[in-house]
Amino acid sequence: MSFLDKYQNIVSEAVEKHVFLDKPEELYAPMNYIMSHGGKRMRPIMVLMACDLFGGKLEDAIKPALAIEYFHNFTLIHDDIMDEAPLRRNKATIHTLYGLNIGILSGDNLLFKAYQYFLDLEPVLFKKCLKIFTDTGIVVCEGQQYDVNFESMNDVSHDDYIKMITYKTGSLSAASLQIGALIAGASDEDAESIYNFGKHLGIAFQIMDDYLDVYGDQAAVGKKHAGDIYENKKTILYLTALQNANEEERKELDYWYTKKTDNVDKIYGVEKIFRMTKVEEKVLRLVHQHSEIALEYLNKIDVPAENKKPLLELAEYLLKREK
Amino acid sequence: MSFLDKYQNIVSEAVEKHVFLDKPEELYAPMNYIMSHGGKRMRPIMVLMACDLFGGKLEDAIKPALAIEYFHNFTLIHDDIMDEAPLRRNKATIHTLYGLNIGILSGDNLLFKAYQYFLDLEPVLFKKCLKIFTDTGIVVCEGQQYDVNFESMNDVSHDDYIKMITYKTGSLSAASLQIGALIAGASDEDAESIYNFGKHLGIAFQIMDDYLDVYGDQAAVGKKHAGDIYENKKTILYLTALQNANEEERKELDYWYTKKTDNVDKIYGVEKIFRMTKVEEKVLRLVHQHSEIALEYLNKIDVPAENKKPLLELAEYLLKREK
Repeated sequence: MSFLDKYQNIVSEAVEKHVFLDKPEELYAPMNYIMSHGGKRMRPIMVLMACDLFGGKLEDAIKPALAIEYFHNFTLIHDDIMDEAPLRRNKATIHTLYGLNIGILSGDNLLFKAYQYFLDLEPVLFKKCLKIFTDTGIVVCEGQQYDVNFESMNDVSHDDYIKMITYKTGSLSAASLQIGALIAGASDEDAESIYNFGKHLGIAFQIMDDYLDVYGDQAAVGKKHAGDIYENKKTILYLTALQNANEEERKELDYWYTKKTDNVDKIYGVEKIFRMTKVEEKVLRLVHQHSEIALEYLNKIDVPAENKKPLLELAEYLLKREK
Repeated sequence: MSFLDKYQNIVSEAVEKHVFLDKPEELYAPMNYIMSHGGKRMRPIMVLMACDLFGGKLEDAIKPALAIEYFHNFTLIHDDIMDEAPLRRNKATIHTLYGLNIGILSGDNLLFKAYQYFLDLEPVLFKKCLKIFTDTGIVVCEGQQYDVNFESMNDVSHDDYIKMITYKTGSLSAASLQIGALIAGASDEDAESIYNFGKHLGIAFQIMDDYLDVYGDQAAVGKKHAGDIYENKKTILYLTALQNANEEERKELDYWYTKKTDNVDKIYGVEKIFRMTKVEEKVLRLVHQHSEIALEYLNKIDVPAENKKPLLELAEYLLKREK
């Protein structure tokens, strides 16, 4: 069994064991509904992996790991409302099934439950973890807003984009690892290193996600080819093309990205410019850079190489080219 | 100057001093917007009053007091979305002005900011306060859901109703006082007493709020007379009438409460049953009972009588018959 499977099983069991039995049921049923759907549960796994990395007691990390997953699902519930998404993990979204009001309220309550799940930690550790958790909540909200802002901006820079994905997604992976490390009693310095490992791994993952939209194995990715281009999404591919385009190419990009069309000519046109501006290799290089930075941070941590295997497996899994 | 005015000034100054300067502005402008509108700011005042009651340093309580107000405004933003309310404190609500998505997200972020504002407390105190704060968040969500459930229930009991208002509103007043007390270094027992003072004061206030809808001085209350009756709201007046009605009166109540009409005959009809079932005196007795319980808890606290004056003024203000 892979490390990932092992940790995934631990998280699954914990989720089942901690199913909400509270009342009123109208509030808790949707919370149990979204928690039962699984997903990859990468973030709670990261809490546990970081705890093991530093030789901590895994049982101390279980509830904080669930807290991280509650937080993640709180963001999913509210994001799905904002995006008017009908489906999540192939199931009806909460607001679709239970209505807007229960969507807002069950999301809010899931966040409070997340905070509650840290309460077994002793005060000094509790405060350290809660500071990281709360600061992360704020940057996730800020990242979400930047993402929305970018939709109507014409001058999003490369750096703006990296900042946005760091805030919106990288920060939570990073925080998950840092919290797991602190629970295991890691030094602040080591906890910081594993935070940065998670941050750059998260950035690399998010860039890879953009990359696979166009260059991924369609069957393996399980999404429509070039869906982001159809949607005019300002992905890192688009921004890289824009940055490297000559005037004519830029005009053509602008032309396509103001059109909302299912015409396949658009995909040919845009992908041609991606080729001219060497988007594929540039973006892969960026993924490589960030995964290298991530690994450097992991290398800095002075624990037996054996302990790092699960995290290396995780990095490989997250960054493999067909997903 | 009254004690209330004094504390209100302190809170106002703190709100202004702590105006959010963070980015992106699209996220923080709505948060500053709702915080600038004031309202009575009773809850942060309670934090400060409880801190003073036990001789604490007021400056230690300022940021936690703001945290309580952020929390309160987080609930208002989300509640206004759920209620589709166009106005709050005579100003456009956030979702009306900025849209649903910013309403959800700025509410979420205000809650994270609330948590952040406890971070100056030392770890043991931090954990105590955060436990109270988080547990309160959960019961507020539960109370909100009970309130929604009651709308479509025909068998809401008196106790159900008291539980709902305790969860939805009493718990936050209670928690505000308890947190202020703990920051001042009060014993757990005294902090518990002031919590119960706040809880029963909150219940009495909420009942009074229902009472004034029908029996208040319309001009002073500033709301339409008997608005709750027009809206078929299951207030404590309605529940008390139902509990004490004979079969004929119950039938008539049912008749009126299934009708959505602006016909003044409805008000006459319902108020007649309220008279027959002695609703006014019964409900006032309930207010009196809860305010007596509140005062007993205040009496149990062994501090100079002088220190209790602000809280007595607060109780008097909240429970006066024309508001």
